Amino acid sequence: MKQFMDKDFLLSTETARVLFHEHAAKMPIIDYHCHINPREIAENKRFRNITEIWLGGDHYKWRLMRSAGVEERYITGDASDREKFQKWAETLSRAIGNPLYHWSHLELQRYFGYYGTLSGETAQEVWELTCAKLAEEEMSARGIIKASNVDTVCTTDDPIDTLEWHKVIADDETFDVKVYPAWRPDRAMNIEKPDFVEYISMLSAAAGVECRTFADVKKALALRMDYFGAQGCCISDHGLEYMMYAPCGDSEVEEIFAARMGGNRLSAEQIVRYKTAFMLFCAKEYYQRGWTMQLHYGCLRDNNPSMYAKLGPDTGFDCISNHTPAAQLTGFLGAISENLPKTIIYSLNPIDNAVIGTVIGCFQSAPYVGKVQQGSAWWFNDHITGMRDQMTSLASLGYLAGFVGMLTDSRSFLSYPRHEYFRRILCDLLGDWVEKGMYPADMDTLASIVRDISYNNAKNYFGFN
Amino acid sequence: MKQFMDKDFLLSTETARVLFHEHAAKMPIIDYHCHINPREIAENKRFRNITEIWLGGDHYKWRLMRSAGVEERYITGDASDREKFQKWAETLSRAIGNPLYHWSHLELQRYFGYYGTLSGETAQEVWELTCAKLAEEEMSARGIIKASNVDTVCTTDDPIDTLEWHKVIADDETFDVKVYPAWRPDRAMNIEKPDFVEYISMLSAAAGVECRTFADVKKALALRMDYFGAQGCCISDHGLEYMMYAPCGDSEVEEIFAARMGGNRLSAEQIVRYKTAFMLFCAKEYYQRGWTMQLHYGCLRDNNPSMYAKLGPDTGFDCISNHTPAAQLTGFLGAISENLPKTIIYSLNPIDNAVIGTVIGCFQSAPYVGKVQQGSAWWFNDHITGMRDQMTSLASLGYLAGFVGMLTDSRSFLSYPRHEYFRRILCDLLGDWVEKGMYPADMDTLASIVRDISYNNAKNYFGFN
Amino acid sequence: MKQFMDKDFLLSTETARVLFHEHAAKMPIIDYHCHINPREIAENKRFRNITEIWLGGDHYKWRLMRSAGVEERYITGDASDREKFQKWAETLSRAIGNPLYHWSHLELQRYFGYYGTLSGETAQEVWELTCAKLAEEEMSARGIIKASNVDTVCTTDDPIDTLEWHKVIADDETFDVKVYPAWRPDRAMNIEKPDFVEYISMLSAAAGVECRTFADVKKALALRMDYFGAQGCCISDHGLEYMMYAPCGDSEVEEIFAARMGGNRLSAEQIVRYKTAFMLFCAKEYYQRGWTMQLHYGCLRDNNPSMYAKLGPDTGFDCISNHTPAAQLTGFLGAISENLPKTIIYSLNPIDNAVIGTVIGCFQSAPYVGKVQQGSAWWFNDHITGMRDQMTSLASLGYLAGFVGMLTDSRSFLSYPRHEYFRRILCDLLGDWVEKGMYPADMDTLASIVRDISYNNAKNYFGFN
Repeated sequence: MKQFMDKDFLLSTETARVLFHEHAAKMPIIDYHCHINPREIAENKRFRNITEIWLGGDHYKWRLMRSAGVEERYITGDASDREKFQKWAETLSRAIGNPLYHWSHLELQRYFGYYGTLSGETAQEVWELTCAKLAEEEMSARGIIKASNVDTVCTTDDPIDTLEWHKVIADDETFDVKVYPAWRPDRAMNIEKPDFVEYISMLSAAAGVECRTFADVKKALALRMDYFGAQGCCISDHGLEYMMYAPCGDSEVEEIFAARMGGNRLSAEQIVRYKTAFMLFCAKEYYQRGWTMQLHYGCLRDNNPSMYAKLGPDTGFDCISNHTPAAQLTGFLGAISENLPKTIIYSLNPIDNAVIGTVIGCFQSAPYVGKVQQGSAWWFNDHITGMRDQMTSLASLGYLAGFVGMLTDSRSFLSYPRHEYFRRILCDLLGDWVEKGMYPADMDTLASIVRDISYNNAKNYFGFN
Repeated sequence: MKQFMDKDFLLSTETARVLFHEHAAKMPIIDYHCHINPREIAENKRFRNITEIWLGGDHYKWRLMRSAGVEERYITGDASDREKFQKWAETLSRAIGNPLYHWSHLELQRYFGYYGTLSGETAQEVWELTCAKLAEEEMSARGIIKASNVDTVCTTDDPIDTLEWHKVIADDETFDVKVYPAWRPDRAMNIEKPDFVEYISMLSAAAGVECRTFADVKKALALRMDYFGAQGCCISDHGLEYMMYAPCGDSEVEEIFAARMGGNRLSAEQIVRYKTAFMLFCAKEYYQRGWTMQLHYGCLRDNNPSMYAKLGPDTGFDCISNHTPAAQLTGFLGAISENLPKTIIYSLNPIDNAVIGTVIGCFQSAPYVGKVQQGSAWWFNDHITGMRDQMTSLASLGYLAGFVGMLTDSRSFLSYPRHEYFRRILCDLLGDWVEKGMYPADMDTLASIVRDISYNNAKNYFGFN
Repeated sequence: MKQFMDKDFLLSTETARVLFHEHAAKMPIIDYHCHINPREIAENKRFRNITEIWLGGDHYKWRLMRSAGVEERYITGDASDREKFQKWAETLSRAIGNPLYHWSHLELQRYFGYYGTLSGETAQEVWELTCAKLAEEEMSARGIIKASNVDTVCTTDDPIDTLEWHKVIADDETFDVKVYPAWRPDRAMNIEKPDFVEYISMLSAAAGVECRTFADVKKALALRMDYFGAQGCCISDHGLEYMMYAPCGDSEVEEIFAARMGGNRLSAEQIVRYKTAFMLFCAKEYYQRGWTMQLHYGCLRDNNPSMYAKLGPDTGFDCISNHTPAAQLTGFLGAISENLPKTIIYSLNPIDNAVIGTVIGCFQSAPYVGKVQQGSAWWFNDHITGMRDQMTSLASLGYLAGFVGMLTDSRSFLSYPRHEYFRRILCDLLGDWVEKGMYPADMDTLASIVRDISYNNAKNYFGFN
């Protein structure tokens, strides 16, 4: 029996162990997609206890607690931090097979030097240990990032964001980690949302362009892209229910936009036409700027109306969608095939692996290695089965060696061990293939593949220095 | 090489063996969803031979025989019981990888003490042995149930059922297994079926309420729920093609109902509106009564018209559907989120695992552990891959330790070893994780998880005594 | 660690090794579905170098090169054969986990006696060795087929094909491999394609029937089926986006056909009605002739307009579709359930495994073993995971022992080792089950199952004497 989460955690062959310890573990981290708050880096935030850093905004943990029957007051309510931690410890101790079990223990090991197991019985010991550790000088936002060997972080930012904190960080010579904004213009696309009109006026103000037409919106967005680009942005991100493709003429898009601005309700078909036009515009801009376009889809959000009324969005009430029509995805990519930006496609639904793995193969072109990528196993798929399946599918259908690899998609400064988790799974997968005689035991090539997927591919693909 | 189906069948690690033999195997069975006939328990039915009990009504076996090229006369036709058994033995002997191979041999081992393998050559020996055994006093319906360590059974019953046999069983002090009805009102929902109008008049008679409006139907159903509740019913079941959600106002539902009762043909949209209203009503009633709502979907029934004309429904001509829109499922659950009954969601399509695993996470709430459950791998998924995938997905996306576990969904008194099959797979999965260092080798916690999933969770969730 | 691709490649148990080496490896090959050019067999084509035979028309390899960032001139462009081979060798050497890695090395081992690994460094050595080998007498189209122990090949042919090369081969007593045409009438079904009207006039000429109505088309096709049948054809193949079912009356089909021939644009609904009528006609003819109907679906073709403009179809720009409605598939099969031909159903989308596995179970009937088959893992699924999943699903849901097994679907004379690949995976799967105690170690039965799936089932099912 292997020891619980020891140094060879998830590494079941000698080849895997060598690949991980000698190569993967030594590479820095590029976290090219996350949701951490740049202000907290700029101000070098500190944390009063483990509950603040673990349970302050992590809806993954909230969901698990609710599933285990914990009352809401111990989750997002007015219970004390210590009480909440107790409930979390009790929940986690029985969460066999859940990635939070592994993530949490990796975090306890790497940041707090705790190698025991968290449970109701050990909660007090862990509470005291983590409180003491968090009081130490180096356990600040910046300290954690540096200790995690991160060299580049891309946050997620709205086009109207001032990027003021990114500037503070960039101007601070005492902190050498690159923190770039990433462009996430969902609010300008979601024409059906109640706050769309209000958002457009905010965009007008931010860009200094009065947006009376969709042409104006495009102009304003292009100006904001310039602004983001000046701050180092080279990645965009789109959160989509599915990748839609329902093209129409410019004049019709303008009519739809005008109707919405005039307070009219749009039909479902009008909404997807507007969104299609929006995405076609964005893709064209990204291509011209050399930016990468991330398409995230397959998510249904805010499914529980009574909890939404209490807690708002991003509080643990989202799920996977199964309406992700391949023909519209290929229609969209086909329409821009002459001027396709670098693109990463993620579906939250793991059954889309094979579709995406074959769609990307239709749009590759030199000089890029893997110009169109299948994104790593994301959110609900960020676990052993999800990552193994995504990488096995990608390898079977395409060129795994060109994969840009992992991201955290996280709001927490303690989440970098998810890169370690990913790298262990990657090395175990490759090691397994080698030791079964399915690929030569050529350690030079294997090491270069591992180092590329861990770090080099992302660096080259996005063009970070 | 492991011996064929010995005591450590499917248990590949020492941890798995301990968990199964010391814990899982010792727990009683709650078979909270099955299709056995309560009259056969009440009358303590006996079986003349293995063909009657195995091939009398088991469409799983019929399908397999048809797939192997056996003529229908040896399946549902006029061949002798011995001839049918011969064909079944020949078919099974080559059915490598099919769960019927395991189920059948588990049944031969557990009920008949036969540890060989069934084939055309051994069919005569097995025939004689099983005939002799079935002649013994204890091999009656009740004897088999008792020998299987079953403590609770829920049958599946129409609202118009008199439940007379449930009463006979409940009143019989010589038999201490609880046999409760479960509420299955599909006929009152299926407004498009030819016999709907006739069914409504039967419902009127059963409830003593003249059903002229949908409001009357609801009143009649509520009265029948009271009647079922008085007989111990606390579980409902719905067989749905997919979980639909197309809400409309009360008056429109009444118009649809009136149109149907008046002999008019309904549009597809009218049908789903009626069904939506029906399900919203049921869910509200279940919530008020503390009943559990089971939603089974993803099935296309009676696909072979020529065989349907000869044999009728439930004879082996159903298949898995792939129209199971997640957005309608979440729409329905969202609409009742304030008053959601305990709910178990099953799709017959294994590709829905990830959707369901994330949907249930949106609707959990204290004080229930796993108030909304993903049901166990069902019917066509009741095999090693299906059960491993369902449990791995549930663990990755939620709280496996709260799972209410297995049911037989069976018409046969010999099917209880499917609980053993499930428990072996469960223990093997957990043992594998532990021995790979993915969860601590804490046998107390592991044992409690195994005992809970095998028995305690169901007992607590449904509220049996 | 196992050696790289040695004689026990993919065979992880002793049972698997015995089953493969003693049984599977000794069976001849029936390649009942491929795309090789019969003219090249008739003329006994020779190959000038490995680039011609490997990269001349193989879009699998082209896609992989594009994914690895190789410029198009080294793929389909004007680079020299030696340059293209270099780029291919460099691409392949890092294509870990891709089936092309295994296929290519199996081909190098079996046909060229090369047991090293192909890479940029070994490319020159392999180039020279393969050039020398291809210059040898026996390395012709016919020589390769004979050396591969192939006894029957079915090509893929349009109804208007003259089958002249099939006749040349049949009449040549020096070559005893059977080369039959297979009937692929897609162009007569694809009423929406620009060349449909032109095609109908070509069909008229080929059949000697002036096709002015759909009734005429049916008459012409029936005559061509007679012609194909006289040349040994007993298999048809249909390439479908999905299996549609939208029946209408004869007169409406005639109106649709007349509208199209008159130059009118058809609605989407009209197109599927015509196609439904077309498929119903075909199925009826196949039933009467005892032919097998192959239904291939789940593919979106020609997704990249800019590359399509340059290279045309079948050049590596197709992908998997996820619109494959089960209810239409069962509707179609149900409509012909009285007169159902032998049918093989393939979806390119691996998520359809469970649907297909249960659909086929609804339409089985004696005297055929597996009258309706789930086709083997096809095209993008022709890899270890794809084949294991397909066979595991088929075994769990039906009767694996009756499976007609593998086909190459290939344009290359070197692709027969894919049958070896399949047989290794099959033997490994069965061996694994046996050594885990899940099936008896009855080597006679196991050997017969392996020999049947490798060869005998196809021979009996299709009726190749």
